[in-house]
Amino acid sequence: MNMWFTEEFHNRFRVGVKVDQTVYSAQSEFQKIDIFDTPHFGRTLALDGIFMTSIGDEFYYHEMIAHPALVTAPKIDRVLIIGGGDGGTAREVLRHKEVKEVVLAEIDGMVVEACKKFMPEIGAGAWEDPRFKEAIGDGIKYVAEAKEGSFDVILLDGSDPVGPAEGLFGLDFYKNVKRVLAPDGVFALQSESPVVFEKLFFDTQKALRGVFEQVHPYFGSVPLYGAGMWTWTYCTKDTNPLEMYESRVIAAEKHAKYYNRDIHCGSFAVPSFVKNRLIK
Amino acid sequence: MNMWFTEEFHNRFRVGVKVDQTVYSAQSEFQKIDIFDTPHFGRTLALDGIFMTSIGDEFYYHEMIAHPALVTAPKIDRVLIIGGGDGGTAREVLRHKEVKEVVLAEIDGMVVEACKKFMPEIGAGAWEDPRFKEAIGDGIKYVAEAKEGSFDVILLDGSDPVGPAEGLFGLDFYKNVKRVLAPDGVFALQSESPVVFEKLFFDTQKALRGVFEQVHPYFGSVPLYGAGMWTWTYCTKDTNPLEMYESRVIAAEKHAKYYNRDIHCGSFAVPSFVKNRLIK
Repeated sequence: MNMWFTEEFHNRFRVGVKVDQTVYSAQSEFQKIDIFDTPHFGRTLALDGIFMTSIGDEFYYHEMIAHPALVTAPKIDRVLIIGGGDGGTAREVLRHKEVKEVVLAEIDGMVVEACKKFMPEIGAGAWEDPRFKEAIGDGIKYVAEAKEGSFDVILLDGSDPVGPAEGLFGLDFYKNVKRVLAPDGVFALQSESPVVFEKLFFDTQKALRGVFEQVHPYFGSVPLYGAGMWTWTYCTKDTNPLEMYESRVIAAEKHAKYYNRDIHCGSFAVPSFVKNRLIK
Repeated sequence: MNMWFTEEFHNRFRVGVKVDQTVYSAQSEFQKIDIFDTPHFGRTLALDGIFMTSIGDEFYYHEMIAHPALVTAPKIDRVLIIGGGDGGTAREVLRHKEVKEVVLAEIDGMVVEACKKFMPEIGAGAWEDPRFKEAIGDGIKYVAEAKEGSFDVILLDGSDPVGPAEGLFGLDFYKNVKRVLAPDGVFALQSESPVVFEKLFFDTQKALRGVFEQVHPYFGSVPLYGAGMWTWTYCTKDTNPLEMYESRVIAAEKHAKYYNRDIHCGSFAVPSFVKNRLIK
């Protein structure tokens, strides 16, 4: 048997991973969930045919969505994660002992249950942490209803803007995120690749700049995504993304496999072809 | 017609690019040369089935192999490029007006001719520059016979270590490079990906450390390579890779689409999973 799982971008670029066996495959209320074993990345999760994460490379993504915000925000008592159903982002957030509460607003409870059962390594330490609270439901609704200034850090760990994640890329949503965020808080989000999702990347940057005073895309790689370059974006009123709390950097570095102090700083270097378009 | 060109890594990960048409396909003395048009990357070159470069993404690679060495080496009068038959590395080197001579030691003259004819954009400005000299022939032999200390900068722009590029990854070759390099010169090379060529990457680092006093891998992305993360390595006796000549940075930034001062510094940040293995 020679089975491959392939993600195709705009019918012109594709990334394939050999599959040893399918572990779980189900249609939830929101999306198709596939979990399978691969020799290259280990156990791998895809939603609606789009690679999400894998045991082998999840650390690139989860460390980079969590730590830049967590090591720089003035306060990190209360953290909201929108999406993030695999638990990896929560795990990294909870490495910081100053964090008092993490709320996971994930729309698809079936993703959470499948990840807990079949990829328990990803959320290990988070699921059972007393500071961790699940709020299964629509993240858009969650921020629309949440109290003003009620979170110190908000992390948007969403999928591509198709299916249930579509509304997570809109201006109204960002405005509510800002409202719910503490005045000096930090909002960080997965913001796609300027290589394979060029328009989406620049549209997202533009929308964020319409809402937040400071918007800094930062760069890294996620091997599973095959795009060569991935981004997250750091949004804030006036917090300096390069001014780190020493003890938190040490806490992050202790476990991190990708992230460290130098990577943090280096990730905010913007390639010229991106910078030139953002300046305009 | 639905034609794709696919590169497969260890029969477990693969990257495919849709092909509109084949432009050139030939077997040279050394390798299979394919040039084809793709909607995603534009015109693309593959050697022995391995993606080399494309009009659409060549700048990521060529700027990053050339400028870190060129903006930091104390002298850049004489530059040797081993491989680099598409002309892109020479083009970037020649952006620096202090450069007096660039020698291209490319083994496969058919690659050079095919690139000149079918991908002239890549070497544009280099082929006709009076400072540029072609030395078609074996790069290993070239450095074995070249005069001691005769180049200020040496760039190894080679393919993966299969076929003609195999000997470019060996200790004897590196020793000859060091001999041919000026005492305070810089040797920079394409050094593969720690993600898809983990063993090769670490073996190469080890071999380089056996020869050069200072060995610094630096990181970036090459979308065509599909690996998420690519590396080059900066080798020197005592030149500081972060101490840049201001006028040269400005010269590089003027044309560069990926490289800039921040990217230069940021690229030397080493992900923890790499750093931890290099320290051991």
